Amino acid sequence: MSKFFIGIDLGGTNIKLALVDAKSKILEQTEIPTSSKAPAKTVINEIMAAIKKFKKYKNVYAIGVGVAGDVDYASGTVRFSPNLPKWRNVKVKAAIERLSGKKVFVDNDANTAALGAFWLDAKGKPQNLICLTLGTGVGGGIIINKSLYRGSSNTAGEIGHMTIDYAGHKCNCGNRGCIETHIGANYLARRASMTPKELYASAAAGNKTAKALWQDAGQKLGIAIANILNILNPDIIVLCGGISQAGKFVTVPMEAEIKSRAFKSAARACKIIVSKYTSKLGVVGAAMLAQNK
Amino acid sequence: MSKFFIGIDLGGTNIKLALVDAKSKILEQTEIPTSSKAPAKTVINEIMAAIKKFKKYKNVYAIGVGVAGDVDYASGTVRFSPNLPKWRNVKVKAAIERLSGKKVFVDNDANTAALGAFWLDAKGKPQNLICLTLGTGVGGGIIINKSLYRGSSNTAGEIGHMTIDYAGHKCNCGNRGCIETHIGANYLARRASMTPKELYASAAAGNKTAKALWQDAGQKLGIAIANILNILNPDIIVLCGGISQAGKFVTVPMEAEIKSRAFKSAARACKIIVSKYTSKLGVVGAAMLAQNK
Repeated sequence: MSKFFIGIDLGGTNIKLALVDAKSKILEQTEIPTSSKAPAKTVINEIMAAIKKFKKYKNVYAIGVGVAGDVDYASGTVRFSPNLPKWRNVKVKAAIERLSGKKVFVDNDANTAALGAFWLDAKGKPQNLICLTLGTGVGGGIIINKSLYRGSSNTAGEIGHMTIDYAGHKCNCGNRGCIETHIGANYLARRASMTPKELYASAAAGNKTAKALWQDAGQKLGIAIANILNILNPDIIVLCGGISQAGKFVTVPMEAEIKSRAFKSAARACKIIVSKYTSKLGVVGAAMLAQNK
Repeated sequence: MSKFFIGIDLGGTNIKLALVDAKSKILEQTEIPTSSKAPAKTVINEIMAAIKKFKKYKNVYAIGVGVAGDVDYASGTVRFSPNLPKWRNVKVKAAIERLSGKKVFVDNDANTAALGAFWLDAKGKPQNLICLTLGTGVGGGIIINKSLYRGSSNTAGEIGHMTIDYAGHKCNCGNRGCIETHIGANYLARRASMTPKELYASAAAGNKTAKALWQDAGQKLGIAIANILNILNPDIIVLCGGISQAGKFVTVPMEAEIKSRAFKSAARACKIIVSKYTSKLGVVGAAMLAQNK
Protein backbone atom coordinates (compact mmCIF):
# COMPACT_ATOMS: atom_id res chain seq x y z
CA MET A 1 0.00 0.00 0.00
CA SER A 2 1.18 3.53 -0.80
CA LYS A 3 2.44 5.73 1.96
CA PHE A 4 1.19 9.29 2.27
CA PHE A 5 2.62 12.31 4.04
CA ILE A 6 1.16 15.57 5.26
CA GLY A 7 3.00 18.83 4.79
CA ILE A 8 2.16 21.92 6.80
CA ASP A 9 3.48 25.35 5.83
CA LEU A 10 2.82 27.43 8.91
CA GLY A 11 2.84 31.12 8.00
CA GLY A 12 1.84 34.20 9.92
CA THR A 13 -1.30 34.82 7.84
CA ASN A 14 -2.27 31.44 6.43
CA ILE A 15 -1.47 27.80 6.98
CA LYS A 16 -1.14 25.65 3.88
CA LEU A 17 -1.77 21.95 4.34
CA ALA A 18 -1.38 19.15 1.81
CA LEU A 19 -1.51 15.39 1.63
CA VAL A 20 1.27 14.22 -0.64
CA ASP A 21 2.41 10.88 -2.01
CA ALA A 22 5.95 9.50 -1.79
CA LYS A 23 6.80 11.13 -5.12
CA SER A 24 5.81 14.62 -3.90
CA LYS A 25 2.50 14.72 -5.79
CA ILE A 26 -0.23 16.67 -4.00
CA LEU A 27 -3.37 14.52 -3.65
CA GLU A 28 -5.38 16.77 -1.34
CA GLN A 29 -4.81 20.31 -0.13
CA THR A 30 -6.37 23.05 1.89
CA GLU A 31 -5.57 26.39 3.49
CA ILE A 32 -6.75 27.93 6.74
CA PRO A 33 -6.18 31.37 8.26
CA THR A 34 -3.60 31.52 11.07
CA SER A 35 -5.05 32.51 14.44
CA SER A 36 -1.89 34.44 15.07
CA LYS A 37 -3.24 36.22 18.15
CA ALA A 38 -4.43 33.01 19.80
CA PRO A 39 -2.19 30.75 21.89
CA ALA A 40 -0.14 28.12 20.05
CA LYS A 41 -2.45 25.41 21.39
CA THR A 42 -5.41 26.88 19.48
CA VAL A 43 -3.44 26.99 16.24
CA ILE A 44 -2.32 23.39 16.69
CA ASN A 45 -5.92 22.28 17.32
CA GLU A 46 -7.02 24.08 14.14
CA ILE A 47 -4.25 22.33 12.20
CA MET A 48 -5.39 18.96 13.59
CA ALA A 49 -9.01 19.65 12.62
CA ALA A 50 -7.95 20.57 9.08
CA ILE A 51 -5.72 17.56 8.44
CA LYS A 52 -8.26 15.11 9.84
CA LYS A 53 -10.58 16.17 7.03
CA PHE A 54 -8.20 14.72 4.41
CA LYS A 55 -9.84 11.58 2.98
CA LYS A 56 -6.61 9.61 3.11
CA TYR A 57 -5.72 10.84 6.63
CA LYS A 58 -5.75 7.29 8.00
CA ASN A 59 -3.06 6.23 5.54
CA VAL A 60 -0.73 9.06 6.47
CA TYR A 61 2.65 7.79 7.60
CA ALA A 62 4.22 10.99 8.93
CA ILE A 63 3.71 14.74 9.14
CA GLY A 64 6.17 17.55 8.38
CA VAL A 65 5.92 21.16 9.47
CA GLY A 66 7.86 24.16 8.16
CA VAL A 67 7.97 27.41 10.13
CA ALA A 68 9.92 30.61 9.60
CA GLY A 69 12.29 31.34 12.45
CA ASP A 70 14.46 29.59 14.96
CA VAL A 71 13.42 25.96 14.99
CA ASP A 72 15.20 23.20 16.88
CA TYR A 73 14.94 20.29 14.49
CA ALA A 74 16.20 17.72 16.98
CA SER A 75 13.36 18.33 19.46
CA GLY A 76 10.83 19.75 17.00
CA THR A 77 10.51 22.96 18.99
CA VAL A 78 9.69 26.37 17.52
CA ARG A 79 11.88 28.55 19.72
CA PHE A 80 10.85 31.78 18.04
CA SER A 81 9.04 32.78 14.87
CA PRO A 82 8.85 36.35 13.58
CA ASN A 83 5.45 35.52 12.03
CA LEU A 84 4.00 34.14 15.25
CA PRO A 85 4.99 36.57 17.99
CA LYS A 86 3.03 34.64 20.64
CA TRP A 87 5.05 31.47 20.04
CA ARG A 88 7.98 30.88 22.37
CA ASN A 89 9.52 27.42 22.73
CA VAL A 90 6.44 25.64 21.40
CA LYS A 91 6.95 21.86 21.29
CA VAL A 92 5.19 21.38 17.97
CA LYS A 93 6.52 17.90 17.33
CA ALA A 94 5.43 16.56 20.72
CA ALA A 95 2.00 18.22 20.53
CA ILE A 96 1.07 16.99 17.05
CA GLU A 97 2.52 13.52 17.71
CA ARG A 98 0.29 13.24 20.80
CA LEU A 99 -2.81 14.43 18.95
CA SER A 100 -2.23 12.43 15.75
CA GLY A 101 -0.35 9.35 16.89
CA LYS A 102 1.93 9.84 13.88
CA LYS A 103 5.61 10.75 13.54
CA VAL A 104 6.12 14.50 13.19
CA PHE A 105 9.14 16.48 11.95
CA VAL A 106 9.54 20.24 12.29
CA ASP A 107 12.09 22.41 10.51
CA ASN A 108 12.65 25.98 9.43
CA ASP A 109 11.07 27.16 6.21
CA ALA A 110 14.39 27.54 4.35
CA ASN A 111 15.02 23.82 4.73
CA THR A 112 11.48 22.85 3.73
CA ALA A 113 11.75 25.20 0.72
CA ALA A 114 14.98 23.43 -0.31
CA LEU A 115 13.23 20.07 -0.12
CA GLY A 116 10.31 21.50 -2.11
CA ALA A 117 12.70 22.83 -4.78
CA PHE A 118 14.49 19.48 -4.87
CA TRP A 119 11.25 17.59 -5.54
CA LEU A 120 9.22 20.09 -7.56
CA ASP A 121 11.74 22.09 -9.60
CA ALA A 122 14.45 19.45 -9.81
CA LYS A 123 12.22 16.33 -9.79
CA GLY A 124 14.37 14.65 -7.14
CA LYS A 125 17.24 14.18 -9.58
CA PRO A 126 20.29 16.26 -8.59
CA GLN A 127 22.88 15.10 -6.08
CA ASN A 128 23.53 18.59 -4.73
CA LEU A 129 21.12 21.52 -4.64
CA ILE A 130 21.17 24.93 -3.00
CA CYS A 131 17.93 26.83 -2.45
CA LEU A 132 17.95 30.54 -1.70
CA THR A 133 14.75 32.00 -0.27
CA LEU A 134 14.73 35.68 -1.20
CA GLY A 135 12.10 37.18 1.06
CA THR A 136 12.05 39.57 4.02
CA GLY A 137 15.36 37.97 4.89
CA VAL A 138 17.50 35.62 2.82
CA GLY A 139 17.31 31.96 3.79
CA GLY A 140 19.30 29.05 2.52
CA GLY A 141 18.82 25.29 2.33
CA ILE A 142 21.51 22.83 1.27
CA ILE A 143 20.89 19.40 -0.17
CA ILE A 144 23.95 17.17 -0.44
CA ASN A 145 23.84 13.63 -1.78
CA LYS A 146 20.07 14.01 -2.12
CA SER A 147 19.59 14.71 1.60
CA LEU A 148 19.10 17.89 3.54
CA TYR A 149 22.44 18.93 4.99
CA ARG A 150 21.92 20.30 8.51
CA GLY A 151 25.49 20.56 9.72
CA SER A 152 26.75 19.54 13.13
CA SER A 153 24.19 21.39 15.25
CA ASN A 154 21.29 21.79 12.79
CA THR A 155 22.15 25.38 11.86
CA ALA A 156 23.75 24.93 8.42
CA GLY A 157 22.44 26.89 5.46
CA GLU A 158 22.55 30.45 6.76
CA ILE A 159 23.71 31.58 3.34
CA GLY A 160 21.93 34.91 3.74
CA HIS A 161 24.47 35.74 6.42
CA MET A 162 27.54 35.27 4.29
CA THR A 163 29.70 38.41 4.34
CA ILE A 164 30.56 39.69 0.88
CA ASP A 165 31.55 43.16 2.05
CA TYR A 166 33.22 42.96 5.43
CA ALA A 167 33.01 46.69 6.17
CA GLY A 168 29.48 46.98 4.76
CA HIS A 169 26.00 47.59 6.16
CA LYS A 170 25.13 46.38 9.63
CA CYS A 171 22.87 43.30 9.51
CA ASN A 172 20.16 42.28 11.99
CA CYS A 173 22.26 39.20 12.81
CA GLY A 174 25.01 41.38 14.27
CA ASN A 175 27.42 40.87 11.38
CA ARG A 176 28.30 43.37 8.63
CA GLY A 177 27.98 43.12 4.87
CA CYS A 178 25.82 39.97 4.81
CA ILE A 179 24.16 39.25 1.48
CA GLU A 180 20.83 39.84 3.26
CA THR A 181 21.76 43.52 3.68
CA HIS A 182 21.94 43.81 -0.10
CA ILE A 183 18.95 41.82 -1.31
CA GLY A 184 16.67 41.17 1.68
CA ALA A 185 13.25 42.76 1.09
CA ASN A 186 13.46 44.79 4.31
CA TYR A 187 16.81 46.33 3.42
CA LEU A 188 15.75 46.88 -0.18
CA ALA A 189 12.56 48.62 0.95
CA ARG A 190 14.51 50.86 3.29
CA ARG A 191 16.93 51.85 0.54
CA ALA A 192 14.18 52.42 -2.02
CA SER A 193 11.64 53.98 0.38
CA MET A 194 8.98 51.78 -1.20
CA THR A 195 7.97 48.11 -1.11
CA PRO A 196 9.76 45.65 -3.42
CA LYS A 197 6.47 45.32 -5.37
CA GLU A 198 6.36 49.06 -5.93
CA LEU A 199 10.06 49.03 -6.80
CA TYR A 200 9.39 46.31 -9.36
CA ALA A 201 6.51 48.27 -10.90
CA SER A 202 8.66 51.39 -11.02
CA ALA A 203 11.50 49.55 -12.78
CA ALA A 204 9.02 47.93 -15.17
CA ALA A 205 7.74 51.43 -16.01
CA GLY A 206 11.30 52.41 -16.94
CA ASN A 207 12.39 54.34 -13.84
CA LYS A 208 16.19 54.44 -13.90
CA THR A 209 16.70 54.73 -10.15
CA ALA A 210 14.49 51.70 -9.56
CA LYS A 211 16.34 49.73 -12.24
CA ALA A 212 19.69 50.67 -10.71
CA LEU A 213 18.56 49.45 -7.29
CA TRP A 214 17.53 46.09 -8.73
CA GLN A 215 20.78 45.91 -10.67
CA ASP A 216 22.77 46.49 -7.50
CA ALA A 217 20.78 43.81 -5.64
CA GLY A 218 21.24 41.38 -8.54
CA GLN A 219 24.99 41.98 -8.64
CA LYS A 220 25.36 41.31 -4.94
CA LEU A 221 23.29 38.14 -5.27
CA GLY A 222 25.61 37.09 -8.12
CA ILE A 223 28.66 37.59 -5.87
CA ALA A 224 27.09 35.40 -3.18
CA ILE A 225 26.21 32.74 -5.76
CA ALA A 226 29.77 32.80 -7.16
CA ASN A 227 30.96 32.05 -3.62
CA ILE A 228 28.54 29.15 -3.34
CA LEU A 229 29.66 27.78 -6.70
CA ASN A 230 33.34 27.99 -5.70
CA ILE A 231 32.77 26.39 -2.32
CA LEU A 232 30.01 23.86 -2.96
CA ASN A 233 29.97 23.20 -6.73
CA PRO A 234 26.28 22.16 -6.78
CA ASP A 235 24.27 20.81 -9.72
CA ILE A 236 21.55 23.39 -9.31
CA ILE A 237 20.71 26.56 -7.44
CA VAL A 238 17.03 27.39 -7.07
CA LEU A 239 15.90 30.93 -6.21
CA CYS A 240 12.50 31.35 -4.61
CA GLY A 241 10.54 33.86 -2.52
CA GLY A 242 9.10 37.25 -3.37
CA ILE A 243 12.29 38.94 -4.56
CA SER A 244 13.00 36.10 -7.01
CA GLN A 245 9.88 37.23 -8.87
CA ALA A 246 11.67 40.41 -9.98
CA GLY A 247 12.88 38.33 -12.91
CA LYS A 248 15.44 39.80 -15.29
CA PHE A 249 15.93 42.96 -13.22
CA VAL A 250 17.75 40.66 -10.81
CA THR A 251 18.89 37.69 -12.91
CA VAL A 252 20.70 39.62 -15.70
CA PRO A 253 23.15 41.46 -13.40
CA MET A 254 23.37 38.32 -11.23
CA GLU A 255 24.47 36.19 -14.18
CA ALA A 256 27.03 38.77 -15.34
CA GLU A 257 28.61 38.82 -11.91
CA ILE A 258 28.72 35.02 -11.69
CA LYS A 259 30.41 34.90 -15.09
CA SER A 260 33.11 37.33 -14.04
CA ARG A 261 33.71 35.82 -10.59
CA ALA A 262 33.02 32.08 -10.32
CA PHE A 263 35.34 29.27 -11.35
CA LYS A 264 34.32 28.42 -14.89
CA SER A 265 34.08 24.67 -14.31
CA ALA A 266 31.81 25.17 -11.30
CA ALA A 267 29.64 27.72 -13.13
CA ARG A 268 29.29 25.44 -16.17
CA ALA A 269 28.29 22.49 -14.00
CA CYS A 270 25.45 24.39 -12.31
CA LYS A 271 21.99 25.32 -13.49
CA ILE A 272 20.59 28.44 -11.81
CA ILE A 273 16.81 28.84 -11.96
CA VAL A 274 13.93 30.74 -10.42
CA SER A 275 11.47 28.27 -8.90
CA LYS A 276 8.25 27.73 -10.83
CA TYR A 277 6.53 26.58 -7.65
CA THR A 278 7.32 29.34 -5.12
CA SER A 279 3.92 29.12 -3.40
CA LYS A 280 4.01 25.30 -3.09
CA LEU A 281 7.62 24.73 -2.07
CA GLY A 282 6.92 25.09 1.64
CA VAL A 283 3.99 22.72 1.90
CA VAL A 284 5.41 20.03 -0.40
CA GLY A 285 8.87 20.39 1.18
CA ALA A 286 7.32 19.91 4.64
CA ALA A 287 5.67 16.71 3.45
CA MET A 288 8.97 15.48 2.00
CA LEU A 289 10.67 16.34 5.29
CA ALA A 290 8.35 13.78 6.85
CA GLN A 291 9.19 11.27 4.14
CA ASN A 292 12.94 11.76 4.32
CA LYS A 293 13.12 10.17 7.75
CA MET B 1 44.83 -9.98 6.67
CA SER B 2 45.27 -6.24 7.07
CA LYS B 3 45.03 -3.98 4.09
CA PHE B 4 47.69 -1.37 3.48
CA PHE B 5 47.69 1.79 1.41
CA ILE B 6 50.39 3.96 -0.08
CA GLY B 7 50.17 7.73 0.05
CA ILE B 8 52.22 9.95 -2.21
CA ASP B 9 52.55 13.69 -1.59
CA LEU B 10 53.98 14.98 -4.84
CA GLY B 11 55.59 18.38 -4.26
CA GLY B 12 57.79 20.53 -6.44
CA THR B 13 60.93 19.91 -4.35
CA ASN B 14 60.34 16.59 -2.61
CA ILE B 15 58.05 13.62 -2.85
CA LYS B 16 56.88 12.12 0.42
CA LEU B 17 55.82 8.49 0.32
CA ALA B 18 54.31 6.39 3.08
CA LEU B 19 52.79 2.97 3.61
CA VAL B 20 49.83 3.36 5.92
CA ASP B 21 47.38 0.97 7.56
CA ALA B 22 43.59 1.26 7.39
CA LYS B 23 43.62 3.38 10.56
CA SER B 24 46.00 5.96 9.04
CA LYS B 25 49.07 4.79 10.97
CA ILE B 26 52.34 5.19 9.07
CA LEU B 27 54.22 1.86 8.99
CA GLU B 28 56.94 2.79 6.52
CA GLN B 29 57.93 6.11 4.98
CA THR B 30 60.51 7.71 2.74
CA GLU B 31 61.19 10.91 0.84
CA ILE B 32 62.87 11.48 -2.52
CA PRO B 33 63.80 14.68 -4.36
CA THR B 34 61.48 15.67 -7.22
CA SER B 35 63.15 15.62 -10.64
CA SER B 36 61.12 18.68 -11.49
CA LYS B 37 63.03 19.40 -14.71
CA ALA B 38 62.66 15.86 -16.04
CA PRO B 39 59.61 14.63 -17.96
CA ALA B 40 56.69 13.32 -15.91
CA LYS B 41 57.55 9.76 -16.97
CA THR B 42 60.90 9.96 -15.14
CA VAL B 43 59.24 11.22 -11.96
CA ILE B 44 56.67 8.43 -12.10
CA ASN B 45 59.41 5.82 -12.55
CA GLU B 46 61.25 7.25 -9.55
CA ILE B 47 58.04 7.05 -7.50
CA MET B 48 57.58 3.42 -8.54
CA ALA B 49 61.16 2.53 -7.58
CA ALA B 50 60.67 4.14 -4.16
CA ILE B 51 57.37 2.47 -3.28
CA LYS B 52 58.55 -0.97 -4.41
CA LYS B 53 61.17 -0.77 -1.65
CA PHE B 54 58.45 -0.78 1.02
CA LYS B 55 58.61 -4.18 2.77
CA LYS B 56 54.83 -4.55 2.75
CA TYR B 57 54.46 -3.36 -0.86
CA LYS B 58 52.94 -6.69 -1.93
CA ASN B 59 50.10 -6.26 0.58
CA VAL B 60 49.24 -2.80 -0.63
CA TYR B 61 45.62 -2.57 -1.71
CA ALA B 62 45.56 0.86 -3.37
CA ILE B 63 47.64 3.98 -3.91
CA GLY B 64 46.68 7.63 -3.46
CA VAL B 65 48.46 10.66 -4.88
CA GLY B 66 48.04 14.30 -3.88
CA VAL B 67 49.31 17.07 -6.15
CA ALA B 68 48.97 20.85 -5.96
CA GLY B 69 47.11 22.28 -8.91
CA ASP B 70 44.33 21.43 -11.30
CA VAL B 71 43.66 17.71 -10.95
CA ASP B 72 40.82 15.84 -12.63
CA TYR B 73 39.85 13.35 -9.95
CA ALA B 74 37.55 11.36 -12.22
CA SER B 75 40.29 10.46 -14.71
CA GLY B 76 43.24 10.86 -12.33
CA THR B 77 44.88 13.41 -14.60
CA VAL B 78 47.13 16.24 -13.43
CA ARG B 79 46.07 18.95 -15.86
CA PHE B 80 48.44 21.54 -14.49
CA SER B 81 50.58 21.94 -11.37
CA PRO B 82 52.33 25.19 -10.41
CA ASN B 83 55.06 23.11 -8.72
CA LEU B 84 55.70 20.93 -11.77
CA PRO B 85 55.80 23.30 -14.73
CA LYS B 86 56.63 20.49 -17.18
CA TRP B 87 53.48 18.58 -16.31
CA ARG B 88 50.51 19.11 -18.63
CA ASN B 89 47.63 16.64 -18.72
CA VAL B 90 49.65 13.83 -17.17
CA LYS B 91 47.55 10.69 -16.70
CA VAL B 92 49.01 9.78 -13.33
CA LYS B 93 46.30 7.28 -12.40
CA ALA B 94 46.63 5.31 -15.64
CA ALA B 95 50.44 5.33 -15.54
CA ILE B 96 50.81 4.14 -11.94
CA GLU B 97 48.00 1.60 -12.30
CA ARG B 98 49.79 0.11 -15.32
CA LEU B 99 53.14 -0.02 -13.53
CA SER B 100 51.84 -1.27 -10.18
CA GLY B 101 48.77 -3.31 -11.06
CA LYS B 102 47.01 -1.60 -8.14
CA LYS B 103 44.11 0.85 -7.96
CA VAL B 104 45.27 4.46 -7.97
CA PHE B 105 43.45 7.65 -6.96
CA VAL B 106 44.73 11.15 -7.66
CA ASP B 107 43.43 14.37 -6.15
CA ASN B 108 44.52 17.92 -5.42
CA ASP B 109 46.53 18.56 -2.29
CA ALA B 110 43.75 20.52 -0.55
CA ASN B 111 41.54 17.43 -0.59
CA THR B 112 44.32 15.11 0.57
CA ALA B 113 45.18 17.60 3.35
CA ALA B 114 41.52 17.52 4.46
CA LEU B 115 41.60 13.73 4.63
CA GLY B 116 44.90 13.93 6.53
CA ALA B 117 43.41 16.40 9.01
CA PHE B 118 40.32 14.20 9.39
CA TRP B 119 42.41 11.14 10.30
CA LEU B 120 45.39 12.67 12.13
CA ASP B 121 44.05 15.76 13.90
CA ALA B 122 40.45 14.60 14.29
CA LYS B 123 41.08 10.83 14.60
CA GLY B 124 38.37 10.04 12.07
CA LYS B 125 35.63 11.09 14.50
CA PRO B 126 33.77 14.19 13.25
CA GLN B 127 30.88 14.06 10.82
CA ASN B 128 31.81 17.34 9.12
CA LEU B 129 35.25 18.91 8.82
CA ILE B 130 36.67 21.82 6.87
CA CYS B 131 40.40 22.05 6.22
CA LEU B 132 42.01 25.31 5.12
CA THR B 133 45.49 25.07 3.64
CA LEU B 134 47.13 28.44 4.21
CA GLY B 135 50.11 28.42 1.88
CA THR B 136 51.14 30.26 -1.28
CA GLY B 137 47.46 30.20 -2.08
CA VAL B 138 44.54 29.24 0.15
CA GLY B 139 43.07 25.79 -0.46
CA GLY B 140 40.02 24.17 1.03
CA GLY B 141 38.83 20.64 1.57
CA ILE B 142 35.36 19.70 2.79
CA ILE B 143 34.44 16.49 4.56
CA ILE B 144 30.72 15.87 4.98
CA ASN B 145 29.29 12.79 6.64
CA LYS B 146 32.85 11.49 7.03
CA SER B 147 33.51 11.56 3.27
CA LEU B 148 35.31 14.02 1.04
CA TYR B 149 32.73 16.29 -0.58
CA ARG B 150 33.74 16.95 -4.18
CA GLY B 151 30.62 18.64 -5.50
CA SER B 152 28.96 17.96 -8.81
CA SER B 153 32.03 18.29 -11.04
CA ASN B 154 34.85 17.61 -8.56
CA THR B 155 35.67 21.29 -8.00
CA ALA B 156 34.12 21.90 -4.56
CA GLY B 157 36.22 23.34 -1.76
CA GLU B 158 37.66 26.47 -3.39
CA ILE B 159 37.18 28.29 -0.12
CA GLY B 160 40.23 30.47 -0.80
CA HIS B 161 38.26 32.05 -3.59
CA MET B 162 35.34 33.18 -1.49
CA THR B 163 34.77 36.93 -1.87
CA ILE B 164 34.65 38.77 1.44
CA ASP B 165 35.25 42.20 -0.07
CA TYR B 166 33.59 42.45 -3.45
CA ALA B 167 35.39 45.62 -4.52
CA GLY B 168 38.72 44.46 -3.08
CA HIS B 169 42.08 43.34 -4.45
CA LYS B 170 42.25 41.56 -7.79
CA CYS B 171 42.93 37.84 -7.31
CA ASN B 172 44.86 35.51 -9.65
CA CYS B 173 41.62 33.60 -10.21
CA GLY B 174 40.07 36.63 -11.94
CA ASN B 175 37.76 37.49 -9.07
CA ARG B 176 38.11 40.36 -6.58
CA GLY B 177 38.38 40.33 -2.81
CA CYS B 178 38.93 36.59 -2.40
CA ILE B 179 40.19 35.52 1.02
CA GLU B 180 43.40 34.42 -0.74
CA THR B 181 44.17 38.08 -1.52
CA HIS B 182 44.21 38.76 2.22
CA ILE B 183 46.04 35.77 3.66
CA GLY B 184 47.74 33.93 0.80
CA ALA B 185 51.53 33.90 1.31
CA ASN B 186 52.17 35.52 -2.07
CA TYR B 187 49.84 38.42 -1.40
CA LEU B 188 51.11 38.80 2.15
CA ALA B 189 54.73 38.86 0.92
CA ARG B 190 53.89 41.50 -1.66
CA ARG B 191 52.21 43.69 0.93
CA ALA B 192 54.99 43.23 3.50
CA SER B 193 57.92 43.30 1.01
CA MET B 194 59.36 40.30 2.84
CA THR B 195 58.66 36.56 3.12
CA PRO B 196 56.03 35.35 5.61
CA LYS B 197 58.87 33.80 7.65
CA GLU B 198 60.64 37.16 7.86
CA LEU B 199 57.32 38.82 8.65
CA TYR B 200 56.78 36.34 11.48
CA ALA B 201 60.26 36.97 12.88
CA SER B 202 59.71 40.70 12.67
CA ALA B 203 56.38 40.46 14.52
CA ALA B 204 57.95 38.16 17.10
CA ALA B 205 60.65 40.80 17.65
CA GLY B 206 57.90 43.30 18.40
CA ASN B 207 57.71 45.24 15.13
CA LYS B 208 54.34 47.01 15.11
CA THR B 209 53.92 47.15 11.34
CA ALA B 210 54.56 43.41 11.07
CA LYS B 211 52.11 42.70 13.88
CA ALA B 212 49.47 44.87 12.19
CA LEU B 213 49.87 42.97 8.92
CA TRP B 214 49.34 39.64 10.69
CA GLN B 215 46.40 41.10 12.56
CA ASP B 216 44.80 42.19 9.31
CA ALA B 217 45.37 38.76 7.75
CA GLY B 218 43.95 37.04 10.85
CA GLN B 219 40.85 39.25 10.83
CA LYS B 220 40.15 38.45 7.20
CA LEU B 221 40.62 34.75 7.86
CA GLY B 222 38.13 35.10 10.74
CA ILE B 223 35.58 36.68 8.39
CA ALA B 224 35.96 33.78 5.96
CA ILE B 225 35.63 31.26 8.78
CA ALA B 226 32.50 33.01 10.10
CA ASN B 227 31.02 32.54 6.61
CA ILE B 228 31.92 28.84 6.65
CA LEU B 229 30.38 28.43 10.10
CA ASN B 230 27.14 30.13 9.01
CA ILE B 231 26.88 28.14 5.80
CA LEU B 232 28.25 24.71 6.73
CA ASN B 233 28.08 24.47 10.54
CA PRO B 234 30.95 21.94 10.77
CA ASP B 235 32.22 20.10 13.87
CA ILE B 236 35.78 21.18 13.29
CA ILE B 237 37.90 23.50 11.14
CA VAL B 238 41.56 22.59 10.78
CA LEU B 239 44.10 25.16 9.62
CA CYS B 240 47.31 23.91 8.06
CA GLY B 241 50.11 25.10 5.78
CA GLY B 242 52.93 27.56 6.35
CA ILE B 243 50.84 30.58 7.31
CA SER B 244 48.99 28.59 10.00
CA GLN B 245 52.34 28.40 11.82
CA ALA B 246 52.15 32.13 12.58
CA GLY B 247 50.22 31.08 15.68
CA LYS B 248 48.62 33.73 17.85
CA PHE B 249 49.51 36.59 15.49
CA VAL B 250 46.82 35.10 13.26
CA THR B 251 44.54 33.13 15.61
CA VAL B 252 43.83 35.90 18.16
CA PRO B 253 42.38 38.41 15.64
CA MET B 254 40.75 35.50 13.78
CA GLU B 255 38.89 34.37 16.89
CA ALA B 256 37.76 37.90 17.75
CA GLU B 257 36.31 38.31 14.28
CA ILE B 258 34.52 34.95 14.43
CA LYS B 259 33.02 35.89 17.78
CA SER B 260 31.64 39.16 16.44
CA ARG B 261 30.36 37.75 13.13
CA ALA B 262 29.34 34.08 13.23
CA PHE B 263 26.03 32.68 14.46
CA LYS B 264 26.64 31.80 18.10
CA SER B 265 25.20 28.29 17.87
CA ALA B 266 27.41 27.46 14.87
CA ALA B 267 30.51 28.95 16.50
CA ARG B 268 29.85 27.06 19.74
CA ALA B 269 29.45 23.76 17.87
CA CYS B 270 32.80 24.06 16.09
CA LYS B 271 36.36 23.49 17.26
CA ILE B 272 38.93 25.51 15.33
CA ILE B 273 42.50 24.23 15.53
CA VAL B 274 45.88 24.53 13.87
CA SER B 275 46.98 21.10 12.64
CA LYS B 276 49.68 19.40 14.67
CA TYR B 277 50.64 17.32 11.65
CA THR B 278 51.08 19.88 8.87
CA SER B 279 54.01 18.06 7.25
CA LYS B 280 52.26 14.66 7.28
CA LEU B 281 48.73 15.63 6.26
CA GLY B 282 49.44 15.33 2.53
CA VAL B 283 51.03 11.91 2.56
CA VAL B 284 48.63 10.33 5.06
CA GLY B 285 45.66 12.01 3.39
CA ALA B 286 46.74 10.60 0.02
CA ALA B 287 46.86 7.10 1.54
CA MET B 288 43.38 7.59 3.02
CA LEU B 289 42.16 8.81 -0.37
CA ALA B 290 43.11 5.35 -1.64
CA GLN B 291 41.32 3.72 1.28
CA ASN B 292 38.17 5.78 0.98
CA LYS B 293 37.20 4.15 -2.32
